[in-house]
Amino acid sequence: MKKVGFLGLGIMGKAMATNLIKAGFEVTVWNRNAKKTTELVVLGATQGSTPKEVAASCDITFAMVSDPAAALVICQGPDGVAAGIGEGRGYIDMSTVDDSTSQTIADTITKAGGRFLEAPVSGTKKPAEDGTLIILAAGDQSLYEEALPAFNVMGKMSPFLGEVGQGASMKLVVNMMMGGMLSIFSEGMSLGQKAGLDGEQILDVIAAGAIANPMFAGKGAMLLAEDYTTSFPLKHMQKDMRLAVALGDKLNLSLPSAATANEAFKQAKKAGFSDEDIAAVYKTVN
Amino acid sequence: MKKVGFLGLGIMGKAMATNLIKAGFEVTVWNRNAKKTTELVVLGATQGSTPKEVAASCDITFAMVSDPAAALVICQGPDGVAAGIGEGRGYIDMSTVDDSTSQTIADTITKAGGRFLEAPVSGTKKPAEDGTLIILAAGDQSLYEEALPAFNVMGKMSPFLGEVGQGASMKLVVNMMMGGMLSIFSEGMSLGQKAGLDGEQILDVIAAGAIANPMFAGKGAMLLAEDYTTSFPLKHMQKDMRLAVALGDKLNLSLPSAATANEAFKQAKKAGFSDEDIAAVYKTVN
Amino acid sequence: MKKVGFLGLGIMGKAMATNLIKAGFEVTVWNRNAKKTTELVVLGATQGSTPKEVAASCDITFAMVSDPAAALVICQGPDGVAAGIGEGRGYIDMSTVDDSTSQTIADTITKAGGRFLEAPVSGTKKPAEDGTLIILAAGDQSLYEEALPAFNVMGKMSPFLGEVGQGASMKLVVNMMMGGMLSIFSEGMSLGQKAGLDGEQILDVIAAGAIANPMFAGKGAMLLAEDYTTSFPLKHMQKDMRLAVALGDKLNLSLPSAATANEAFKQAKKAGFSDEDIAAVYKTVN
Amino acid sequence: MKKVGFLGLGIMGKAMATNLIKAGFEVTVWNRNAKKTTELVVLGATQGSTPKEVAASCDITFAMVSDPAAALVICQGPDGVAAGIGEGRGYIDMSTVDDSTSQTIADTITKAGGRFLEAPVSGTKKPAEDGTLIILAAGDQSLYEEALPAFNVMGKMSPFLGEVGQGASMKLVVNMMMGGMLSIFSEGMSLGQKAGLDGEQILDVIAAGAIANPMFAGKGAMLLAEDYTTSFPLKHMQKDMRLAVALGDKLNLSLPSAATANEAFKQAKKAGFSDEDIAAVYKTVN
Repeated sequence: MKKVGFLGLGIMGKAMATNLIKAGFEVTVWNRNAKKTTELVVLGATQGSTPKEVAASCDITFAMVSDPAAALVICQGPDGVAAGIGEGRGYIDMSTVDDSTSQTIADTITKAGGRFLEAPVSGTKKPAEDGTLIILAAGDQSLYEEALPAFNVMGKMSPFLGEVGQGASMKLVVNMMMGGMLSIFSEGMSLGQKAGLDGEQILDVIAAGAIANPMFAGKGAMLLAEDYTTSFPLKHMQKDMRLAVALGDKLNLSLPSAATANEAFKQAKKAGFSDEDIAAVYKTVN
Repeated sequence: MKKVGFLGLGIMGKAMATNLIKAGFEVTVWNRNAKKTTELVVLGATQGSTPKEVAASCDITFAMVSDPAAALVICQGPDGVAAGIGEGRGYIDMSTVDDSTSQTIADTITKAGGRFLEAPVSGTKKPAEDGTLIILAAGDQSLYEEALPAFNVMGKMSPFLGEVGQGASMKLVVNMMMGGMLSIFSEGMSLGQKAGLDGEQILDVIAAGAIANPMFAGKGAMLLAEDYTTSFPLKHMQKDMRLAVALGDKLNLSLPSAATANEAFKQAKKAGFSDEDIAAVYKTVN
Repeated sequence: MKKVGFLGLGIMGKAMATNLIKAGFEVTVWNRNAKKTTELVVLGATQGSTPKEVAASCDITFAMVSDPAAALVICQGPDGVAAGIGEGRGYIDMSTVDDSTSQTIADTITKAGGRFLEAPVSGTKKPAEDGTLIILAAGDQSLYEEALPAFNVMGKMSPFLGEVGQGASMKLVVNMMMGGMLSIFSEGMSLGQKAGLDGEQILDVIAAGAIANPMFAGKGAMLLAEDYTTSFPLKHMQKDMRLAVALGDKLNLSLPSAATANEAFKQAKKAGFSDEDIAAVYKTVN
Repeated sequence: MKKVGFLGLGIMGKAMATNLIKAGFEVTVWNRNAKKTTELVVLGATQGSTPKEVAASCDITFAMVSDPAAALVICQGPDGVAAGIGEGRGYIDMSTVDDSTSQTIADTITKAGGRFLEAPVSGTKKPAEDGTLIILAAGDQSLYEEALPAFNVMGKMSPFLGEVGQGASMKLVVNMMMGGMLSIFSEGMSLGQKAGLDGEQILDVIAAGAIANPMFAGKGAMLLAEDYTTSFPLKHMQKDMRLAVALGDKLNLSLPSAATANEAFKQAKKAGFSDEDIAAVYKTVN
């Protein structure tokens, strides 16, 4: 069993590191606020003093932090991962960051002699706890293969997607489909109800057929209940739609449905629903 | 056990009538080409001589014919259902017809003293054989309740949706969502692959997440295989998209995503894919 | 100089007939409410008793009535144009009617032995008075040529467009462009002002360049003044956009910009601006 | 009469400087390739040795160079405008550059004690020669007022638009409208001709009505002649559409018509028309 490091013990990171410990990995943990390491040390983890030290003492170090700035900080500088990684060890950043941040981290690690994978995840608290995340890995393939036993503990699937950047691209593609689906779903729910159909019955019929999917079930219940409690903030979806359309622009690809859905989410933002759940796009259609 | 009639023994009707016989209903069958009744008579059905005679001798008569013209013919005229239905018996047309045809049939039957339900189905040959159709019933509620045991044999769900016309509206709403989903799915598949992702991996990631649905799995495999063998002809989907947008127009509802997907399907028709499967819309995006 | 008839002396018809009289035509007039003929008789017109009598006594009879129903009434029936037209005389309906009404009138006149032109006009009261209408003629070409001297009096241009129906198609094409232009103009005016530009200055810059056009000048002043006094009712524009998109559907042509503008006008209708001027589409963008 | 400098004597700059000389301004010229100054010296201009020297010896120095890189080079460095401008003199960059370049130049000049205007122009060779450019000025208002006599020689209008950046915004707004108009125009021309109308007649009818504009006349003739000789490259229009949609995003404004037109131009790029004239968008509609 390999020695692994884990940097970042927020809601997601704590659940993921816990699963690694329970599965028998020898885990060294670090968190900016050291208090959060206590619970994991009780479970058997070793406490690391800096990202550098963790990276220097483990075969593979994972990170799960909240934003691009944090991801850069733990990688760079005198106490950062790059300073400790040395020749051949591996660093896997599972945080959700933009393309250019991911590339910067990849370059920093590679120059320091290490191997790098970006591995953003799809899924929130519950799947992190249940070990059913979807892990979108891209970068160094040898590192990917060594990390697979750990990925199998944290997620239900973890395909290797190619070069650094392709993990982020996959996430964008899936979120773009999600946004487009939500837009046409909102229009259909509104049309059906205006035509005299019962909202619950529309959901029942959908649930029984070829387009049945967990998102329609979940968001459908929310919009009938007029409950837009945020699970995925609408403004983040609009940002992803915008980035997807921009990626299409770069690749010379016309994406009229995505562009139209993007405008729908922008209209929802303009109407003041930025911080509500993505399901709130329904309110601008209806 | 009630006596039921069944008019129209094409691919769908034959499977549905067979299931009724096997479930113990006393079934009288009729088909324009009488040869097709043989197999069902062997299974225990009685052969009827005309739609009128079937309607006159059964508590409830079902019909499943191929188009609006055929649906009108078996209902009207000296040998038609209306001529035989008399006071209180029921007629249930399960064919897919337009609003005005459905209303004409409803009026004809009601004037003749009968009760009427429109009950278009969602699902093709396999679900018809397996008794797992989705039956969208609307019209006379007392007839709906009497017909439920038969619906339960033919389908896996059969909600009562309200007045005549609402069965057709429900089908339109579901198909509109289907068309919009296929449009954004095509754009996403194209974007992902142009960004260097593997098509199979995109499908795998989708299949594991919140937007997983049978249609993406089925059509996704088709478009990766460049196999557009027709299951649902693209031109029919475009017609449904057009009707859905028109219904929105009538109800004063703006449907930009549906309108955009409609134009995508029109572009696919223009490119010559009218008679291919709906999945062929991908070819105009890619 | 030929003898001409003129049926319908509303705002438009009265101005047009007046111009014909002043230009020296021998004009017989008729109006449902006979009082309106007085002024024209004073100018030198002969008063006709029925559409039939006018058509029977003139080489060419023009009509300008308010809607399809009125257009049918003056053509059909015992006192209608068709009853009087006889062999070879001409009837020119300049009212704005739908395709099928125009075709019905064409068939009625042709069966009665007459020749027919549809000639809807572009332009309102002022151009009618000034003799600067745009006349969109289609149907019998020999009649068109005979009518040209009269068209030249009433309008500034009167192209011959082909078969009956093509006058209406031309009007649809022009109105579709108008609607699309108004939609992008509204978005641009809103974007510019949100970006800190002065609305008047945007109009000035537009007026000086390649996209300068009378509509932007007129509607631009209206939207800056928040004055949506109806000149062209928004709901009529939306109807034309819908018909244009439907014509594209019939001709297998994908029209994404028109479809998107159509949805914008539908949103404006939904917001309650149906009876305001087309410029009110700006309010849903801004 | 003030002393003015002129940097950059390409097609545009040469015509503009010539007009200034002919109007009686005392002009000092500079060009990277000094040969191009000869003609202007013959007309009475003084030859400058460096941008620095020109800026130091003139009250106001204009620049008209081909791209952002050139605009930065002549401003910065030991021989650049900033090195010579000193306290209170003015620098007016009429090149078309992006926002951030314009802001950099503004900051450089201001720090050096000078006053700055961005003044991108609308119009090409012919208007430059005729002195009928549209000059979109923004920045230092006192400098604008001093420069007006020169602007009046070079252009037919030169509104003062506000802070640095607003000249570029105005250009974006106008080009976005232009792109959207061209998209709906292409759809209308295609629809009309498919409906059996004659293309020339459509153009004639448009030319006579409320939407008549120079662009439709010019591009309409091009698309009927299937001549897409580049005057405004399609890829540049698509870039402007993209930037306009992005500006809407930043300002929280939904722009569905602009977004749809952007996708149409992207489709045209994908079809290989990037370097043809913007009118080539018609080929992807038709």
